Amino acid sequence: MTATYRALCAHGYAGTSISRIAEEFPKSKSLLYYHYEDKDELLADFLGFLLDQLEAELEADTPDGPEERLDDFLDKLVPTGMDEEHLQFFQALIEMRAQAPHDETFRRQFDRTDDVIVATLTETIEAGIEQGVFRRVEATQTAEFIHAMVYGMLVRSVLVDDEAVLESTREELDNYVDRHLRIEA
Amino acid sequence: MTATYRALCAHGYAGTSISRIAEEFPKSKSLLYYHYEDKDELLADFLGFLLDQLEAELEADTPDGPEERLDDFLDKLVPTGMDEEHLQFFQALIEMRAQAPHDETFRRQFDRTDDVIVATLTETIEAGIEQGVFRRVEATQTAEFIHAMVYGMLVRSVLVDDEAVLESTREELDNYVDRHLRIEA
Repeated sequence: MTATYRALCAHGYAGTSISRIAEEFPKSKSLLYYHYEDKDELLADFLGFLLDQLEAELEADTPDGPEERLDDFLDKLVPTGMDEEHLQFFQALIEMRAQAPHDETFRRQFDRTDDVIVATLTETIEAGIEQGVFRRVEATQTAEFIHAMVYGMLVRSVLVDDEAVLESTREELDNYVDRHLRIEA
Repeated sequence: MTATYRALCAHGYAGTSISRIAEEFPKSKSLLYYHYEDKDELLADFLGFLLDQLEAELEADTPDGPEERLDDFLDKLVPTGMDEEHLQFFQALIEMRAQAPHDETFRRQFDRTDDVIVATLTETIEAGIEQGVFRRVEATQTAEFIHAMVYGMLVRSVLVDDEAVLESTREELDNYVDRHLRIEA
């Protein structure tokens, strides 16, 4: 999985081949060829692994209160100050996602991620409404909106050279959450 | 350009080749090969043509008032009820955009589109502030936010089978514009 990550960072999705992943693989290369027929089979496994990690990360060290949980969640989904390696990795993910309508396995993995993100956001918003800290908004609709926003920001972050654009968009997302959700004390 | 559009709808970006574009080209195929070295050279021209069209469309029949202009602009950028052909075409555009960091010509074309969209949104918001119909928000920051949102919605729309998800996200974008920008009468 580390070898696949390195190959994707270095060559992008289109430029990654099973032999380039093998170059990054310190153990027996024949083992790799034995397990995987082609690059897309390996990448599908890699996506599954990544999504398990994402789910674990989203659930790890979550603060108790719904407001803090939402902030924590947004920080995890849209990290600011990404280094070059992280940006290249997100770029490879965006390429794989663009392939998803043509590849049933990729599609299933991304559908699963989308479902996890939207469900976690929805639960957090609903908890906040129940506890009287969030307004009575349409929880799923708000979750879908934030999810689309987060993805749009990630795509922009790999294309734009200006970190300031990203930071101000993130600030605007925080403004949205404040005004749309929070009940002022 | 029509032949390229048709080939992209039918085969996606990865599956489009200059010979598949030629199949859709009713005139002399040799003319096509004479003009273009490879598929990416042709697609770069196609993107330029498309962006000219987008700019023309965004400027065409725009209502006078900033509020109506913003609504009109969002309707043009995020058309609801897209048919299968339109969805496939947007899918090919998303694939090309995912390639942009690896392809300087694609990148320039998409940078140009982003600039046009953000500038038009910013001008509309500034006009609304001047005319006293919009709040005194950070115009560029709001424009970047809407732009990222619109792109996230387009990506979601090609992956999700459920038109209801799209419609409710668009509704939430309208809510955002209402609450964030409009000064209630």
